[in-house]
Amino acid sequence: MQRLDETFPLIKWLSKYQRETFISDLMAGIIVAIMLVPQSMAYAMLAGLPPEFGLYASILPLLIYSLLGSSRTLAVGPVAISSLMVSTAVSQVAVQGSESYINAAINLSILVGVILLFLRSLRLGAIVNFISHSVLSGFTSAAAIVIAVSQLKHLLGLELPRQNSVDESLHDIFSAITDTNLIALLLSIFGLLLLWYCKAGLCKKLQGLKFPDYISQPICKAGPMFVVILGSLAVWIFSLDNNANVQTVGMIPQGLPSIPDITLDLELWKQLFIPALLIALIGFIESVSVGTALASKRQERIDPNKELVALGMANLGAAFSGTYPVAGGFGRSMVNFSAGAQTTVASIICAILVGITAAYFTPLFYYLPKAMLGVIIIMAVLPLIDFDAFMQSWKFNKADAMTLLVTFVLVLFIGVEFGILLGIALSITLLLYRASQPHIAIVGRIGETEHFRNIERHRVKTDQSTIAIRIDESLYFANTRFVEEFVLQQCLQRQGVKHVVLIFTAVNFVDASALETLEQLITNLRQEDITLHLSEVKGPVMDQLSNTLFLEHLGAGKVFFTTDQAMKELAGI
Amino acid sequence: MQRLDETFPLIKWLSKYQRETFISDLMAGIIVAIMLVPQSMAYAMLAGLPPEFGLYASILPLLIYSLLGSSRTLAVGPVAISSLMVSTAVSQVAVQGSESYINAAINLSILVGVILLFLRSLRLGAIVNFISHSVLSGFTSAAAIVIAVSQLKHLLGLELPRQNSVDESLHDIFSAITDTNLIALLLSIFGLLLLWYCKAGLCKKLQGLKFPDYISQPICKAGPMFVVILGSLAVWIFSLDNNANVQTVGMIPQGLPSIPDITLDLELWKQLFIPALLIALIGFIESVSVGTALASKRQERIDPNKELVALGMANLGAAFSGTYPVAGGFGRSMVNFSAGAQTTVASIICAILVGITAAYFTPLFYYLPKAMLGVIIIMAVLPLIDFDAFMQSWKFNKADAMTLLVTFVLVLFIGVEFGILLGIALSITLLLYRASQPHIAIVGRIGETEHFRNIERHRVKTDQSTIAIRIDESLYFANTRFVEEFVLQQCLQRQGVKHVVLIFTAVNFVDASALETLEQLITNLRQEDITLHLSEVKGPVMDQLSNTLFLEHLGAGKVFFTTDQAMKELAGI
Repeated sequence: MQRLDETFPLIKWLSKYQRETFISDLMAGIIVAIMLVPQSMAYAMLAGLPPEFGLYASILPLLIYSLLGSSRTLAVGPVAISSLMVSTAVSQVAVQGSESYINAAINLSILVGVILLFLRSLRLGAIVNFISHSVLSGFTSAAAIVIAVSQLKHLLGLELPRQNSVDESLHDIFSAITDTNLIALLLSIFGLLLLWYCKAGLCKKLQGLKFPDYISQPICKAGPMFVVILGSLAVWIFSLDNNANVQTVGMIPQGLPSIPDITLDLELWKQLFIPALLIALIGFIESVSVGTALASKRQERIDPNKELVALGMANLGAAFSGTYPVAGGFGRSMVNFSAGAQTTVASIICAILVGITAAYFTPLFYYLPKAMLGVIIIMAVLPLIDFDAFMQSWKFNKADAMTLLVTFVLVLFIGVEFGILLGIALSITLLLYRASQPHIAIVGRIGETEHFRNIERHRVKTDQSTIAIRIDESLYFANTRFVEEFVLQQCLQRQGVKHVVLIFTAVNFVDASALETLEQLITNLRQEDITLHLSEVKGPVMDQLSNTLFLEHLGAGKVFFTTDQAMKELAGI
Repeated sequence: MQRLDETFPLIKWLSKYQRETFISDLMAGIIVAIMLVPQSMAYAMLAGLPPEFGLYASILPLLIYSLLGSSRTLAVGPVAISSLMVSTAVSQVAVQGSESYINAAINLSILVGVILLFLRSLRLGAIVNFISHSVLSGFTSAAAIVIAVSQLKHLLGLELPRQNSVDESLHDIFSAITDTNLIALLLSIFGLLLLWYCKAGLCKKLQGLKFPDYISQPICKAGPMFVVILGSLAVWIFSLDNNANVQTVGMIPQGLPSIPDITLDLELWKQLFIPALLIALIGFIESVSVGTALASKRQERIDPNKELVALGMANLGAAFSGTYPVAGGFGRSMVNFSAGAQTTVASIICAILVGITAAYFTPLFYYLPKAMLGVIIIMAVLPLIDFDAFMQSWKFNKADAMTLLVTFVLVLFIGVEFGILLGIALSITLLLYRASQPHIAIVGRIGETEHFRNIERHRVKTDQSTIAIRIDESLYFANTRFVEEFVLQQCLQRQGVKHVVLIFTAVNFVDASALETLEQLITNLRQEDITLHLSEVKGPVMDQLSNTLFLEHLGAGKVFFTTDQAMKELAGI
């Protein structure tokens, strides 16, 4: 049986737990909670849900991840990009504000959880390999812009429907620009400046004043909280909601999340499957990337398969709390790490604090202007926009840069899901295209040695009647025609060829398409009176070939142990 | 400028044309025409179109292919599988028998033509590599069964709606089995026996009677024509259409095809795009496969890119004739070849004969029973069902066999388009999965030579402090994490490692994802006091790396010209 601490990494960590570790975790938990409370409400708004759904997504899922996660410092909860994707997906099947919208969001959590657990059961943690950095980078930058633009209406105090693409959002905003609520705009500008100052100047100032870390750190990270408090106070004191028509969050029900009445609906699952797959994959990849980056700073490793389980269960926890999908967030994880979190106990503390907030303090947010939530979102996603990645990529590999750019443009102007799907398709197509042109070398003997090397790169001995061709790749459907063409052309170009030796040093497997092509090649060459031979066939490949009639079809052709033997016997060199 | 005979291969062939060549071509043209006239009408029925549309698809497209095609013997025209796919695709957007059904079929021809020409313009003849033999084989067998089952209703004289899957078709037939028209059934059985006899016994008999080839050959291949003539005579003489309610083809308009009024409709194109892509790809792959097989029997080659143009233009020709997509057919091409066709002049003769039939002789088909067309279709597709392919594949490669089986089952029971799409997705997923686990070897020095080999397969000299790792694959997003994991694990497993040398002999390119991973690896190793080095980096890869800051990031790490130098300097061995 598997040991308990294999399933629950936290147990292993707790066995070495000390007073100092706890104090570090406590500090980090408090700091992240101060950041998470306003952020989670803002992200819920981005996802098209009431603000309390963000809080609900920051309690049970965190506790579950704390038990199962293999990353000590990953901060799980609502994240910006998943929130955008949820809003895109759910808007296609339900009207925002309706019961069925919430129901669809919960179903999405279930689906995301099930998909992650299913991938784990197939040991498909390797599926992260299917999305290239270029696609992810283009997607992230574009999604961040889509998110930022989607919040502009809140900053301007405009009430507009949600739009999927940047150009539509901007069009709506410009059409309604004259309706801008100047008070909301002023609040927003104040909020942006305050957040910017907290990020840029405040920390240095506090350090300069020699405040101890446990005071300066929470204050530095409390920017969103300040914005929330000051914005709410302004509305309350001047009655801006009534006097200036500033949109506020309003009544948030007090209390912990309860188990929802979920309508399981197969038709709905069918409609949500592709979005759920994308949310699961991107959430998983982001989480593993952040987790790996942070773990490696402390010479630790995380286990992608454990992460699949932990994130899968965390999403089922989100569904159980009646809210929408969660993932490991980039920004909060960085804060958690630099605030000194040592284990996931930090997340447990954070979850408890959010829980207390949800249970008792939601009425405090009654006067919170939506503009402030918009400001928080915008400042959170700006660091995700990475134009530098494109420039770097362009210098290094044009095909990658184009993939990045295409994904970026499609996500920006056509849509989030369509963009990333096409980006993935494009990067796989490029991969197949490269795979269809394997490296093949005609080789000759180096001096009197037993070594054979590329005739284009070395001075080697060759023979008129026998060509030795080394295929630097396994043989399968994508490259088999290329190999066939190459061999036939070489034979037709030269005069007096009698033997062709295919050197299989790099052939790790042969698929059915390639087998068929090889048999075809034998027949074609035979009509030209040329015999095909193989050399240096690896054990597993030889076993494979022996199961078929291939060796009989070789006819006069032989399978040589080494190329040296083949060339000595066939060409006498 | 390109030479004219480069664009039109026929010109080159005509420059060596002789009287004997013409007689061969004439003979082959006549034989194929005798087969094509009934087959083309039958396939049109399969596609859900009136029979004359089959004839129309056998005139202009053949003439165009004759001018542009690089295969001397490929017989282009309506083919069974494309006809099935057309009926599947068009039924989704229009009702069979309506004007809009015909309009959609014509639009499909345009799309198929445009897609093929577009692929040519991108030099993407290599796209045939994206569909593996296994997928194609499973698809072809299943499609043949779907086609055969779809014709059973005609053989039984039942009037039933078309169904997409075999189980639905069979269910409908069993429900209506008591309505079977016994006369139609008798005609069908007679037709099947006659076709079977023509295929199996007649030819041998004629050869035994020493008939000359130019008499015996046309008679052997005239089975479908006999079935048409005898079936029609039976209906006419006994007035079976009135007396026994046998369904007949009825009035076919006399005359050559005219340019249709086509409604270009972008919404329709959007709906038909995926089916058109599949029809184009499968038609192209089948044509190239048959063309290559026949050409190689006479030591000739065909040019896939020329075929893209020829088939693309032939499909535009089909649209211009107001009919549905064409491709190179397997059966008729074989007949054309064995009847002695030397050049595409055979196809020109065939097209002229079909044209004469359409212009003058269509009234002869008034009494042709639909059951006879069903019989012709069934006999034509039976050879496509290839269970042996699965058995062979199973012995050779289980993953390929499963791909074949999954495609087969999905096409049979879920649908033609969905089945092949999922089959393609499955085979690409398998490819990516394999690609994500590249071959990596830790190597050591063989004796006192400069050669380094896998420590698991050779007796080699190694060093505690320096690991040399050879990566047998280019580095890109699909495999980069695997490589990173491997290197880190090797370093953590061993004690006292100071240097890691990555041997790049097999690395032909590095994509942006891999670059990022390599940089990450440098940082991670540095934290363990391990330095990363490279050796035997190829020129183009070195150029790529020099464009970035990678070489600076290497820090103390070096790029060695040979592994020998690296090991001498770092390990002193």
